[in-house]
Amino acid sequence: MNTAGTHVTGKNYIGNQLSAKGKKTYTTFNPQTNTENTNVFTEATQDEINQATDLAADAFQVYSKKSGKEKAGFLRAIAEEIENLGDELLTVYASESGLPAGRAIGERGRTLGQLRAFANHVEEGSWLEATIDTAQPERQPMPKGDLRKMNIGLGPIVVFGASNFPLAFSTAGGDTAAALAAGCPVLVKSHPMHAGTGEMVASAIIKAAEKTGMPNGVFSNLNSSGIEVGQALVKNPNVKGVGFTGSIRGGRALYDLAATRPEPIPVFAEMGSINPVVFLPEALNKEADAWAKTYAGSITLGAGQFCTNPGLLLGIKGEGLNTFAQTLAEEIVKIEPSCMLHPNIVGAYKSNKEKALAQKGVEVLANYDGTPKANYGRQIVSKVSGKTFLENPTLHHEVFGPFSLLVESDNEAQIEQILNKLEGQLTGTIVATDKEIAANPNIVSALQNRVGRIIFNGVPTGVEVCPSMLHGGPYPASTDSRFTAVGVDSIKRWVRPFSFQSWPNNLLPNELKNENPLNILRHVDGVKTTDKI
Amino acid sequence: MNTAGTHVTGKNYIGNQLSAKGKKTYTTFNPQTNTENTNVFTEATQDEINQATDLAADAFQVYSKKSGKEKAGFLRAIAEEIENLGDELLTVYASESGLPAGRAIGERGRTLGQLRAFANHVEEGSWLEATIDTAQPERQPMPKGDLRKMNIGLGPIVVFGASNFPLAFSTAGGDTAAALAAGCPVLVKSHPMHAGTGEMVASAIIKAAEKTGMPNGVFSNLNSSGIEVGQALVKNPNVKGVGFTGSIRGGRALYDLAATRPEPIPVFAEMGSINPVVFLPEALNKEADAWAKTYAGSITLGAGQFCTNPGLLLGIKGEGLNTFAQTLAEEIVKIEPSCMLHPNIVGAYKSNKEKALAQKGVEVLANYDGTPKANYGRQIVSKVSGKTFLENPTLHHEVFGPFSLLVESDNEAQIEQILNKLEGQLTGTIVATDKEIAANPNIVSALQNRVGRIIFNGVPTGVEVCPSMLHGGPYPASTDSRFTAVGVDSIKRWVRPFSFQSWPNNLLPNELKNENPLNILRHVDGVKTTDKI
Repeated sequence: MNTAGTHVTGKNYIGNQLSAKGKKTYTTFNPQTNTENTNVFTEATQDEINQATDLAADAFQVYSKKSGKEKAGFLRAIAEEIENLGDELLTVYASESGLPAGRAIGERGRTLGQLRAFANHVEEGSWLEATIDTAQPERQPMPKGDLRKMNIGLGPIVVFGASNFPLAFSTAGGDTAAALAAGCPVLVKSHPMHAGTGEMVASAIIKAAEKTGMPNGVFSNLNSSGIEVGQALVKNPNVKGVGFTGSIRGGRALYDLAATRPEPIPVFAEMGSINPVVFLPEALNKEADAWAKTYAGSITLGAGQFCTNPGLLLGIKGEGLNTFAQTLAEEIVKIEPSCMLHPNIVGAYKSNKEKALAQKGVEVLANYDGTPKANYGRQIVSKVSGKTFLENPTLHHEVFGPFSLLVESDNEAQIEQILNKLEGQLTGTIVATDKEIAANPNIVSALQNRVGRIIFNGVPTGVEVCPSMLHGGPYPASTDSRFTAVGVDSIKRWVRPFSFQSWPNNLLPNELKNENPLNILRHVDGVKTTDKI
Repeated sequence: MNTAGTHVTGKNYIGNQLSAKGKKTYTTFNPQTNTENTNVFTEATQDEINQATDLAADAFQVYSKKSGKEKAGFLRAIAEEIENLGDELLTVYASESGLPAGRAIGERGRTLGQLRAFANHVEEGSWLEATIDTAQPERQPMPKGDLRKMNIGLGPIVVFGASNFPLAFSTAGGDTAAALAAGCPVLVKSHPMHAGTGEMVASAIIKAAEKTGMPNGVFSNLNSSGIEVGQALVKNPNVKGVGFTGSIRGGRALYDLAATRPEPIPVFAEMGSINPVVFLPEALNKEADAWAKTYAGSITLGAGQFCTNPGLLLGIKGEGLNTFAQTLAEEIVKIEPSCMLHPNIVGAYKSNKEKALAQKGVEVLANYDGTPKANYGRQIVSKVSGKTFLENPTLHHEVFGPFSLLVESDNEAQIEQILNKLEGQLTGTIVATDKEIAANPNIVSALQNRVGRIIFNGVPTGVEVCPSMLHGGPYPASTDSRFTAVGVDSIKRWVRPFSFQSWPNNLLPNELKNENPLNILRHVDGVKTTDKI
């Protein structure tokens, strides 16, 4: 399958105009067929970047003042236009990711769901955190002026999509939906591995913007196979924030670049994680086989290409752990390998895996030994002692792919020690009986200090999109643990509070007017209410 | 007046222990008497810094789990212990700041008010943003697990107090109160200009911590006259966030240092601002004299040593502006100069003022020409054309002190141009008739893009402590416009959301338990409620 015969043009969207002024081109790759796709993409030039960022800055002046209802209309129209792309989108998606059809449909559903959740969220209005303290002209010793505060958009946001989620964490993914909901224009640095998928989704956003009367420049999509376009975007003074999903190296480079701007801007990068799982003995003694089967599935899900993949399994020496290890080894090799996203990812998986396995004391527990097709990821589980793991930080790093390391610890205290040595993680899981979890507050505490989400008797894979999801965590799980990348609260990354003092009522935004014309919940003189003033 | 005969020891508080292991010492200065104070302060050593940060990390494990009620008790006890310091605190304050007694009493009141506001805030519980999505085991195609999210403290926070607010923005000021409310231990890098005031307040915090059973290390106070102690604190891996109030140079240096740590941490620095004020002609034609008198007061308030001091007055050539300029010149020289905080600040004021006045086209409108006492700040108002101001960025920088620059613009379009050229500001003010403000949306928009708070027909000085206050703004007013330094929402700087998935109800924090034992408002399955589950 290739991308010929589709509506993909290979051009950038500079606002609502297709544009290809550059000379540098590239193609995407079909890992299933192990061949280049035929569409040719043209990299954005510095001129095009300047044009797009200027348009975004102008669009911000108009777009940031749109009502929640208008923005919701735009977000819903994007969802509808993505649906209108029909099967062609799924075809291009498959040709650029090697992911199966079911996954494509699921991820599209998730993307549409996110867009619609943000539409509801901005209509509902609590994200504004509208807060009003009315004047007290008689107060002594000084009168108090009228003060009203609400959240407003930061300005144009640059979004770097993820390789492993061509839809849900890319062009119209969570970062984009959150920024558009906040009133911020978006400039997507298109992911080179799925540039065709990206362009199709971009075309849907542009169509939706035109249909719902949004200003030109509210969205742009910029092609790039290297790092220059992304760097130029992050350095551009019109840009006021950055969203990124990907590797620690990539995320940190953008964070550093943004921090050294004359005007530093926030970068929210959601990066790597090994998602430690603690297995306590009583739970394993009871159900070692069942947990082994569950984890064989979680480790290999999507060829292990999830940021919540369980890459570190911590157990305590003994019967239960032996059974678990044996069953895990038996079960995981039964699973058919699946296609990885790109030869580069296959290559990185291979070398990271080899590096881990070459460390002293690391033993292979199970290694799929069939002959998978080109670009299919061979799952592997290895084992090491707690002491060796503690002493070797190389083993603490993520191996992106269907890989997991089982650590045989001496006791609970050693597990606590290991957790305290780990870097920040997206998730931490504890498999335990009710008695065990209650008896090990130190392990729970150590885990909690390191992660953004803690799971009891489950698997870390499967990130629910709902208000109580935290997808982020201490560095390097993210660059700022105060925010989430998933769920409606991810809008907080792209807003700033703003105060109006003694402002004329008729010139206040509707959100803050005495009449409360939008009928939103507000915090007025210390009380949460939808009442007029 | 000097600090001899007070309870000031000159030592550091390393947790609840007084400690002075170092050899480097310094004294504070009384700008009113123009003499050194007699107390000798000992700089914290690297050992003491390590001890304090280790204690803070340990204290965090206990303190972060204290209930809102317990933390509120601690905060109220701090307020009480500060009151118990009685007049001695005011005496030391005056001897180290040159500020008048009324100001000391007012600032102490503000400090106590902030501590008590945070006590109420953490008891009330909305800062937790407790959000619960209950399980849907029957959901297709996948069951949904139970997810519960709430805000928790980031970890130990380092606070750098402001020179110009020895109480309200220093040792037990807004940053400290917010961090302690969030469940974060605090390490104060004591301001060298008011080290005695700082130590006294630190003693009150330590007393309150002991009385209310808070863990040792919940608070430390570290002396330092240079930059090394602050740098060592910001680089320490146990430190998870930084609050700063002061100069752009100082704030940016800490921001850069924190951004280059292996694990970057958030720095909220509230820095300089020239707080532009736009005067539209009709409003000036009506009340030029009254506005001139009001602004003469605002410019000289506290010797101009406020971050909201109006340093830039933008008007349009004409009758009204001429009258305003003349009255302002007449009125401002009538005001008696007041004492500045420190000879260093007097020196910086003098050289920054001279630099501004030496720029081409800058004309002095009014210059207090009496002979003020040593360390008293001579107020000055100068004038420049809009064109010259636009072309000379040197004039866009803050002159900390009783200084303001009146810009005579050609028209509204030029004012808009000027606003678009300015860096980020804490505040922007517009003085206009109702008709004028409605007729100038571009000026309002330009101002809004640059500031954190916008004021109609008022003065920027006077920062109300209330929920709808935003004290911060686009860089360099602050390092992160998404947060405020004043008001209970400033707690958001020091918290991160955290999710529990399928967690046993009895082991959840009380805030998230089914029974809602704290009776707080929570977001449960999309509905705000205090109901049990």
